[in-house]
Amino acid sequence: MSELFSERHRAGIWRTLWIYLADEERKLGLPIRRDQIRALENAKTQIDFRKIHELEKQLKHDVMSHLKAFAQKAPSAEPILHLGATSAFITDNADAILFREATHLILQKLTAILGKLDELMVKYKNLTMTAFTHFQPAQPTTLGKRFALWAQDFLWDVEELEFSLERYQPLGCKGTTGTQASFLTLLRNQAAKVMKLDEGVCRRMGFNRSVALSGQTLSRKTDTWFLNALSNLASSFSKMSYDLRLLQHLREVMEPFGQNQVGSSAMPYKQNPMLAERMTGLARFLMNLAHNGPWTHATQWLERSLDDSSNRRIVIPEAFLTADALCEIGLRMLAGIQVHEEQIFGRLKDYTHLFETEALMMEGTLQGGSRQDLHEKIRLSTIKGKSSPEIENLKRRTQSIPLSGVAAYQVQRFHDQVLGPFLKKHKRRPNLRSEIQI
Amino acid sequence: MSELFSERHRAGIWRTLWIYLADEERKLGLPIRRDQIRALENAKTQIDFRKIHELEKQLKHDVMSHLKAFAQKAPSAEPILHLGATSAFITDNADAILFREATHLILQKLTAILGKLDELMVKYKNLTMTAFTHFQPAQPTTLGKRFALWAQDFLWDVEELEFSLERYQPLGCKGTTGTQASFLTLLRNQAAKVMKLDEGVCRRMGFNRSVALSGQTLSRKTDTWFLNALSNLASSFSKMSYDLRLLQHLREVMEPFGQNQVGSSAMPYKQNPMLAERMTGLARFLMNLAHNGPWTHATQWLERSLDDSSNRRIVIPEAFLTADALCEIGLRMLAGIQVHEEQIFGRLKDYTHLFETEALMMEGTLQGGSRQDLHEKIRLSTIKGKSSPEIENLKRRTQSIPLSGVAAYQVQRFHDQVLGPFLKKHKRRPNLRSEIQI
Amino acid sequence: MSELFSERHRAGIWRTLWIYLADEERKLGLPIRRDQIRALENAKTQIDFRKIHELEKQLKHDVMSHLKAFAQKAPSAEPILHLGATSAFITDNADAILFREATHLILQKLTAILGKLDELMVKYKNLTMTAFTHFQPAQPTTLGKRFALWAQDFLWDVEELEFSLERYQPLGCKGTTGTQASFLTLLRNQAAKVMKLDEGVCRRMGFNRSVALSGQTLSRKTDTWFLNALSNLASSFSKMSYDLRLLQHLREVMEPFGQNQVGSSAMPYKQNPMLAERMTGLARFLMNLAHNGPWTHATQWLERSLDDSSNRRIVIPEAFLTADALCEIGLRMLAGIQVHEEQIFGRLKDYTHLFETEALMMEGTLQGGSRQDLHEKIRLSTIKGKSSPEIENLKRRTQSIPLSGVAAYQVQRFHDQVLGPFLKKHKRRPNLRSEIQI
Amino acid sequence: MSELFSERHRAGIWRTLWIYLADEERKLGLPIRRDQIRALENAKTQIDFRKIHELEKQLKHDVMSHLKAFAQKAPSAEPILHLGATSAFITDNADAILFREATHLILQKLTAILGKLDELMVKYKNLTMTAFTHFQPAQPTTLGKRFALWAQDFLWDVEELEFSLERYQPLGCKGTTGTQASFLTLLRNQAAKVMKLDEGVCRRMGFNRSVALSGQTLSRKTDTWFLNALSNLASSFSKMSYDLRLLQHLREVMEPFGQNQVGSSAMPYKQNPMLAERMTGLARFLMNLAHNGPWTHATQWLERSLDDSSNRRIVIPEAFLTADALCEIGLRMLAGIQVHEEQIFGRLKDYTHLFETEALMMEGTLQGGSRQDLHEKIRLSTIKGKSSPEIENLKRRTQSIPLSGVAAYQVQRFHDQVLGPFLKKHKRRPNLRSEIQI
Repeated sequence: MSELFSERHRAGIWRTLWIYLADEERKLGLPIRRDQIRALENAKTQIDFRKIHELEKQLKHDVMSHLKAFAQKAPSAEPILHLGATSAFITDNADAILFREATHLILQKLTAILGKLDELMVKYKNLTMTAFTHFQPAQPTTLGKRFALWAQDFLWDVEELEFSLERYQPLGCKGTTGTQASFLTLLRNQAAKVMKLDEGVCRRMGFNRSVALSGQTLSRKTDTWFLNALSNLASSFSKMSYDLRLLQHLREVMEPFGQNQVGSSAMPYKQNPMLAERMTGLARFLMNLAHNGPWTHATQWLERSLDDSSNRRIVIPEAFLTADALCEIGLRMLAGIQVHEEQIFGRLKDYTHLFETEALMMEGTLQGGSRQDLHEKIRLSTIKGKSSPEIENLKRRTQSIPLSGVAAYQVQRFHDQVLGPFLKKHKRRPNLRSEIQI
Repeated sequence: MSELFSERHRAGIWRTLWIYLADEERKLGLPIRRDQIRALENAKTQIDFRKIHELEKQLKHDVMSHLKAFAQKAPSAEPILHLGATSAFITDNADAILFREATHLILQKLTAILGKLDELMVKYKNLTMTAFTHFQPAQPTTLGKRFALWAQDFLWDVEELEFSLERYQPLGCKGTTGTQASFLTLLRNQAAKVMKLDEGVCRRMGFNRSVALSGQTLSRKTDTWFLNALSNLASSFSKMSYDLRLLQHLREVMEPFGQNQVGSSAMPYKQNPMLAERMTGLARFLMNLAHNGPWTHATQWLERSLDDSSNRRIVIPEAFLTADALCEIGLRMLAGIQVHEEQIFGRLKDYTHLFETEALMMEGTLQGGSRQDLHEKIRLSTIKGKSSPEIENLKRRTQSIPLSGVAAYQVQRFHDQVLGPFLKKHKRRPNLRSEIQI
Repeated sequence: MSELFSERHRAGIWRTLWIYLADEERKLGLPIRRDQIRALENAKTQIDFRKIHELEKQLKHDVMSHLKAFAQKAPSAEPILHLGATSAFITDNADAILFREATHLILQKLTAILGKLDELMVKYKNLTMTAFTHFQPAQPTTLGKRFALWAQDFLWDVEELEFSLERYQPLGCKGTTGTQASFLTLLRNQAAKVMKLDEGVCRRMGFNRSVALSGQTLSRKTDTWFLNALSNLASSFSKMSYDLRLLQHLREVMEPFGQNQVGSSAMPYKQNPMLAERMTGLARFLMNLAHNGPWTHATQWLERSLDDSSNRRIVIPEAFLTADALCEIGLRMLAGIQVHEEQIFGRLKDYTHLFETEALMMEGTLQGGSRQDLHEKIRLSTIKGKSSPEIENLKRRTQSIPLSGVAAYQVQRFHDQVLGPFLKKHKRRPNLRSEIQI
Repeated sequence: MSELFSERHRAGIWRTLWIYLADEERKLGLPIRRDQIRALENAKTQIDFRKIHELEKQLKHDVMSHLKAFAQKAPSAEPILHLGATSAFITDNADAILFREATHLILQKLTAILGKLDELMVKYKNLTMTAFTHFQPAQPTTLGKRFALWAQDFLWDVEELEFSLERYQPLGCKGTTGTQASFLTLLRNQAAKVMKLDEGVCRRMGFNRSVALSGQTLSRKTDTWFLNALSNLASSFSKMSYDLRLLQHLREVMEPFGQNQVGSSAMPYKQNPMLAERMTGLARFLMNLAHNGPWTHATQWLERSLDDSSNRRIVIPEAFLTADALCEIGLRMLAGIQVHEEQIFGRLKDYTHLFETEALMMEGTLQGGSRQDLHEKIRLSTIKGKSSPEIENLKRRTQSIPLSGVAAYQVQRFHDQVLGPFLKKHKRRPNLRSEIQI
């Protein structure tokens, strides 16, 4: 991920875009020669960052600096470079490619996490353990069910990332204020050709259409789609991490703990849920980061104001990099997760008499009792510790019903109908990045 | 909208849910009689809020208070009420219905806004006006294009609201910790019947499936879907409002201003963009409100912690109510919007010599000049005010190209291919609320 | 608190401000008669809200509507009402009074909370209990220390609220764009009199100076001071609530639980930390609400843009009302808090062998061992459960040192030097509200 | 600033803290020799980061890795290093030093900004220009007044940063869970000596007291103090940047624009407010970053949970670095700011007839007219363009009153009483960093 957001990778994309533009313009009859395109192709990877930084100090404009540096490496193409374009052609279309690449990388890692969760949830679908509501012991669930709940959250996040990718349409060739006026001049007042150019470049970028309408840039709302999807992913990691930290306290499920790892410099006996805690902290960072998305869009002015730029340059890479870090920690966590069955059984045994109360209440109702009365009786009896023959009788009748209800059944059905098919389909998520030859 | 989030409406939904549950349980063979269901039906609208508030003070539990009050009005059904359910059955499923109703109401109003924008964008698609980037005059666009850009943002928001509705699955009948254990007891250990009950109640609610997995409640991630979609809607309103406030400053497009309206108590000559400013402020409120969504989900513990409740009770109604207010203001704004063509023409004329520079640059390139050289020449000439025969020649060759490029063409195509078909399809958005007979 | 933010209270403040202004103008020689002031005084409490709402529909301007309604009740004063003022004179100065009143109310309640915490921390300063870092058992602390830690957080919040009040300077009489031009005209070009009027009105409001500089309104930064202070208060409540929820899980310290209270409609044996959870949820709401403060200030335009108004009208009352609710819940919580000493002793006993390790390590170092070696030895011995004569020897030498170190000493010192003196000083926080006779 | 937050600087502080601790322990009679301290002093700057990174991979614990690496460079001191301490002793106390250093750096730069603003506000205190409310022309102000308003905001931020520094108390030597138990063991059960050690180390760090109470770490509330103060600073920069961007549009006040600077790659005639826009974008980033502060504190568990760590490591440096960048941009902006007086005069002239209305209204009232009637008359006359003898008469009587009221007077007073004295006092803000010899 850090490679994707490196200066080099971005510069490569920019040059690729300049070539696409020139070549598509050539095809539509503009006076651009094949050998100029070839010159650009040949110069593409000769990126002199020192030179570019020098130019930037002078020009105070990054795209122009890169443009000049590129032109210097392919002088014959200099007159036809960036023809009809504005900086946003370069920056926004590069973002389109980066959004796609970065999202695909996240999707690949999420698929791996979902694969691991699928394994674990099926393996432990029947392992009954104490559930907790209000962090008070509650009717048992199974460990598999908990893995499945995390998986369901992640799957929804995948769905949202995919939805964002699907609906995303790159800027294409829209010109200075989105009117394509420069291209209309170049293409001798032929609107149809203007549209063709727009589509042609987008297709080269690997998208099958460009956005219908734009100002100078794409609506900044599109950033929010990705930032929100990543924030939602962060909230799933956070939810999982809270569960894990509480389970680590209960010593029922614990995170991998290395032989040489040091828990605390002062209390060497401790086994701290450090991965899970790191997850919580990073997830919080990402969720707060995402707030920049709507705020930036909300305060844009007319065809564009540049106050988006300094903000997006930090926020977008950091959002993807943090999401990536969360995935990595999640994978490491799940790969080495430890299940302490004795601990689980021990606690379950302690509380069984309490957990039976619900079944008692249900059975009592079937026997004709009032639900509300039974609720009261059982509540008082539990708090005061008194039983009765009525209650003993109910106990006998309910003992064959599993305490964890249909949890295992739910998990299996979720595997069969939802997660299994998903994993099968995405066994090898294509890495779209390779489609663009930078 | 305020009716939807009223105490009365919510209480009506709660009672309806109790009836659905009892009736579906009856169908699956539990000892529940038709006359008990009828008693509940008859008591449904007899809601004594004073009684309920009294009970709540005693019990400190809202669902139980409503339950007792309902049972008192239908004593014969008292023993079978809420059978197998937990409070979350009531509150979460009621939310499902409210989310749907409230979202449909927003969608109806958005459709009206989009209808108005469609009208305006087609009407003004050719009205060329100065564009602004960095709030500096830039290559002209058309007024229709600006309306169309707002419409495109709103259309994406509609897409997201619809996507949220589509993927939303209500809690259904999942029991205390999501294991359906109570229902398994009641239904004599038959998992298939348990699933049937779950689906049956959901179908009665107007959904075709319930969520696959839950703890005590639905994953709180689902709140975020709606809150984010509403926040994104707010950011569209905010973007539009900023544009309008700047246009009001330019006196090109102005908001409706009543005869008797008072602009300022001290400066009576002013025509302040008060609607647009109110929009900005409310949109900001809604975007900040939405942050509660991910944070709440992110910090939930295991099968459920109750720290969601006090937060959601405020946040969800306020989010929909604010979105509703934004729609109302938006509708009023667009219905009376004033276009000052002289003002538009005046400014355009002032800047035409600048706007021509881009076409000059393009034409110059076609004539074989270097784009970079021309850029420099024109920049200096514009800043210093000097022309040249070369530049005069270019001017002659470009004068037939419209300054606003293909803006009008884009708008018409957007109408034909996107917004027109959307409006046709949604001419009368069904108000799903009536489906549930409360 | 809800009374403070009621329509009636606000209207009363507005009228009071109009009277202050007129009367101070009179003193400086403007043609305003004593009987006009008296007429206003007499009409002050005759507020006809129906009339005002009607006027507002017509004028779409709240201050002007209130002004007209006031004038109608005191027709002789009509010509001299609001003389030289703009709406912001009314709204911003009313805010100044409300900020002060509402902050004082919060401070009173916080003082009560701190009083309760002081009692509890002194009472339990020696009650040793298991501490937790990473929610893993760690070197013991005392219960009193925990109460003291919460108190310290709240005390810092008090400090910040007081700091905000102290530095707050009301708008005073600054005129339409902050230049006091209208007052300069009225006062015949005498700047000194203009300043006197400004100060005179502020003194009547109970402030000893007005802000040095303003646009039409006070810098919106001042809102942020209060919103941040309230948000910080919320974060203290949230921290306390998390601790309480975990302690409730441990069954060591529990929140008050009524005889008739219903923990769960389905699991009657549960004792859920409902107050603490409500605290968490409301605190989250308040912290998110506070984000409106900086955003609103950050996006104001020049002498003022009105996009602050619709936002502040919701945010400021809600912030104070939520803070008030948090204080109320906090008070109820602490008043009935339950300490389960057996539970505390039981857990402590279970872990004592682990907690001793730190003292062993210290003692070992004093005996000349290497801290790093000992760390390793004890870590392995604890994980593998093996002891050694060296370790047994260390145990003997450290057994007289209290496991909770100087926790009790810290608490007593905090009481003696910090909290005690604070409480003594603020035994009866004055309610400044009574100073203004509305 | 980036140097302050460099790995090297931080490591230097850590080693310094280890030396302070050992040396203060030595003074209190622990078996630590002077030559061990000397060995540590000598090794202090020999930081082998490669080694440290290797250790970190093994131990997964940064403080322990640095500790080992330090010990290896001073083997004689190895047994007495970190004696009684926990990691938080190192990390939290290092933060204390960094907070102070970084805040002082920001304060220095803010003082420079305030110096520049003071110059500008005095220079332009009389330059009358059109004010804007709702971005509609409003009663004139002066340019100096606008500079002064920005200065007042920044001065309040300085006040808050100083307040945060003042009230900040470092962690000191509190041990694993804040009970100082390890130090009590080392110091043979003498509480007074424990306190002395705590104070001694703090004094060495340049603070005159340590925090009274802590868990394992300082209350995370203290982060919020700084983050909020920086966020408030960001909101001042944002407010200034919005004003500047609007003034650039009006072409009245413009940001420095280099000869070779390129405004737009496509529209070479443009002079875009790029510095101001960058300011807006970065300020937004910082304000959102600050939300991590309360959230982190709000969700800490008991004596400490580690989910603060990964978040604070990113947030705190980024907050200071962004604040620093904002200061740098602000300085550059103000140093080269351009005032276009003709433009200012031109607009003022266009609107003078409107601006006079307020004075007319005031004068009319003095002549015995009803304020409300005059308001109506003037409003209609302005909208419809009709005058009257009554109005002409009022015009004559008010023409000597400056349109910008006492704006210049306010500025001068602000300089004399507030900003001047502040700048005099802080002519050379001491850079406290040098106090600690790393």
